[in-house]
Amino acid sequence: MRVLICGVDGYLGWSLAQHLTARGHEVAGIDDYSRRRWVAEMDSDSALPIASMPDRLLALKEAYKADLTFWEGDLKSYSLIEEVFRSFEPETVVHLGECPSAPYSMIDVHHAVDVHNNNVGSTFNLLFAIRDLAPEAHLVKLGTMGEYGTPNVHIPEGFFEIEYRGRKDRLPFPRQAGSFYHWSKVSGSNHCMFASKIWGTRATDVMQGVVFGTRIDNMADDERLLTRLDFDQCFGTAINRFACQAVVGHPLTPYGKGSQKRGFLPLRDSMQCLTLGIENPPEQGEYRVFNQFEEVHNLSELALKVQKAAGGLGMEVEVRSLENPRTEQEEHFYEPDHRNLLDLGYEPTHDVEAEITIMLEDLQKYSDRIETYRDALIPDVRWDGRRLRSDYLK
Amino acid sequence: MRVLICGVDGYLGWSLAQHLTARGHEVAGIDDYSRRRWVAEMDSDSALPIASMPDRLLALKEAYKADLTFWEGDLKSYSLIEEVFRSFEPETVVHLGECPSAPYSMIDVHHAVDVHNNNVGSTFNLLFAIRDLAPEAHLVKLGTMGEYGTPNVHIPEGFFEIEYRGRKDRLPFPRQAGSFYHWSKVSGSNHCMFASKIWGTRATDVMQGVVFGTRIDNMADDERLLTRLDFDQCFGTAINRFACQAVVGHPLTPYGKGSQKRGFLPLRDSMQCLTLGIENPPEQGEYRVFNQFEEVHNLSELALKVQKAAGGLGMEVEVRSLENPRTEQEEHFYEPDHRNLLDLGYEPTHDVEAEITIMLEDLQKYSDRIETYRDALIPDVRWDGRRLRSDYLK
Repeated sequence: MRVLICGVDGYLGWSLAQHLTARGHEVAGIDDYSRRRWVAEMDSDSALPIASMPDRLLALKEAYKADLTFWEGDLKSYSLIEEVFRSFEPETVVHLGECPSAPYSMIDVHHAVDVHNNNVGSTFNLLFAIRDLAPEAHLVKLGTMGEYGTPNVHIPEGFFEIEYRGRKDRLPFPRQAGSFYHWSKVSGSNHCMFASKIWGTRATDVMQGVVFGTRIDNMADDERLLTRLDFDQCFGTAINRFACQAVVGHPLTPYGKGSQKRGFLPLRDSMQCLTLGIENPPEQGEYRVFNQFEEVHNLSELALKVQKAAGGLGMEVEVRSLENPRTEQEEHFYEPDHRNLLDLGYEPTHDVEAEITIMLEDLQKYSDRIETYRDALIPDVRWDGRRLRSDYLK
Repeated sequence: MRVLICGVDGYLGWSLAQHLTARGHEVAGIDDYSRRRWVAEMDSDSALPIASMPDRLLALKEAYKADLTFWEGDLKSYSLIEEVFRSFEPETVVHLGECPSAPYSMIDVHHAVDVHNNNVGSTFNLLFAIRDLAPEAHLVKLGTMGEYGTPNVHIPEGFFEIEYRGRKDRLPFPRQAGSFYHWSKVSGSNHCMFASKIWGTRATDVMQGVVFGTRIDNMADDERLLTRLDFDQCFGTAINRFACQAVVGHPLTPYGKGSQKRGFLPLRDSMQCLTLGIENPPEQGEYRVFNQFEEVHNLSELALKVQKAAGGLGMEVEVRSLENPRTEQEEHFYEPDHRNLLDLGYEPTHDVEAEITIMLEDLQKYSDRIETYRDALIPDVRWDGRRLRSDYLK
């Protein structure tokens, strides 16, 4: 299958390029390296060293005996998208080319606007290009579980049947996102849903949980194939950031009470799930939603798991809570469905601690890289607009 | 009260400037005349002649013995918004500065992106400016009833209490907008709701029905005070377009079966409702939603009302349905609540036909202006991306 990966230079994008190439798909990619610039703007860098794209492509060719066609450019340019579609004729378009950071979108008005315009504009371009140039192509759009927020009811997969004042309907489940980034993903989901309705686009909207880990299955042993792994306050997500803290002897820092619950899954499972979606496309005109995660944990539990795994490798680290820089509910009900992917054959890894141990071993080799940007481990972007480093609680 | 009107040169903006000035409020305004350019792009013009802003301001001063401070500029410029906030120190900010056209947003990808970025970007700027420069200011944001779409259940005002799988919550009512323009308004609503939650912004989000008419109450008799009235396929809304068709002897053209139901209200009622919202602000941190319309009608009924009113003035016009250029449900349930404004004291005009007669009399004086752009009365922007003039049905 011809699969176009938008955002192929990113954490998920570069992993998926390898995973799909290994499975025999013909892969092309677009990226303008904005993730590299955003992380640099946060005075940080990927914990794992990442090769330049030419070197990555060379390593990919050596490992898998296959070429990946790469376009350097901005997904907000419709003329670029047209050129890529005409040239590559994608059967599947995977949109991983959005800015994925809640704190980054909350820095100030300019970041809020840029994140929104980047994420919504790129999605618009892909939807219109599919309509006009590849109407049978399947759009796999990366959303986030964060679109739903933390309602006091169960979270279905995208839609729910309700009865209201004696009448019934199947409606989109209400979204209550927790940052302007998350709201930009809600917009993208809405636009995909609408395109399916009016244009017959086929789309899979992936409400993904928090991904962690350094590995995909059957990864070739070549440093140039490593995917990025961020630990800064904006682009480092919970378990990844804890693991990076552990390898430099920094306290593991859940925010606030740490009782916020989220869905999590290992990077290798994210690859498995995205691939299931790609290889089992919906019907023409169908817009389907997958809640993509393996298990729900609260953040303190995860910090303790990382602490335990680190201990197993001889690293003693403490867990110390930080003032929560976000405005969010810390105590809440959280019961999201995640049936659709299991029905397609998703087999969860189930061993979070083993995955964390692998990650810690990988990261230990590069602890000096994390040490260099140690300051990036403590957040200072607050939801109220201040830039003020969080203090430890108590 | 110091009221800043964003989009003061528009249909509602210029009307509201007069209405609030007459009531003794201190009014300032911003506009970059984009509405004038958008309508020109559609090869059309306002049916009522509209004066330049300097002439408008002069006429306002003569009629009401009050100055309106005006800034010419783009609401997407945060530095302009900062300058205006610092200088005027608004107590109320009314956001009427969005691109209000569904068909315009559906022309192509560039229009979809521009409408979205304009509407969402301007709202972001106002929210951040309120947070940082005028935290007690009340944002009155114009949304649209079109955000809700046409679900098969009753439409509450913004939020609903539901029971789902045995648990209860009060949730935002799901939005199912019918164009990318309408989705841009959904984003704006979401961002306002979120700002109230995290920053304590006070906001009134007005889900307005379709406005029609040429007059506000106690309007001074000066042609320079007329507000614009559009009849082209993109910026002319249902009753206004029918009235313009009637005065040039053009058939009145509902789309498809004409059985689509919408909420409507006269321009003078829109002014009354917005003023009620402005003069009765919510508490700090409150985000409230008003469904703002007087009566629900289907489009064929309205065409017949215009036909009848035109007949009363000696104009014989036929009603002829056009192929529907939109992808929308024509037969649907539609029962939206509209209690909040009535509770605040809204007294609906209730006489749609009298209002239409006044409008027809006003427009008759300028029928040559409509005649000049007669071609703009038939739509060619289709939801599937084609530019193809609708044929008459049968």
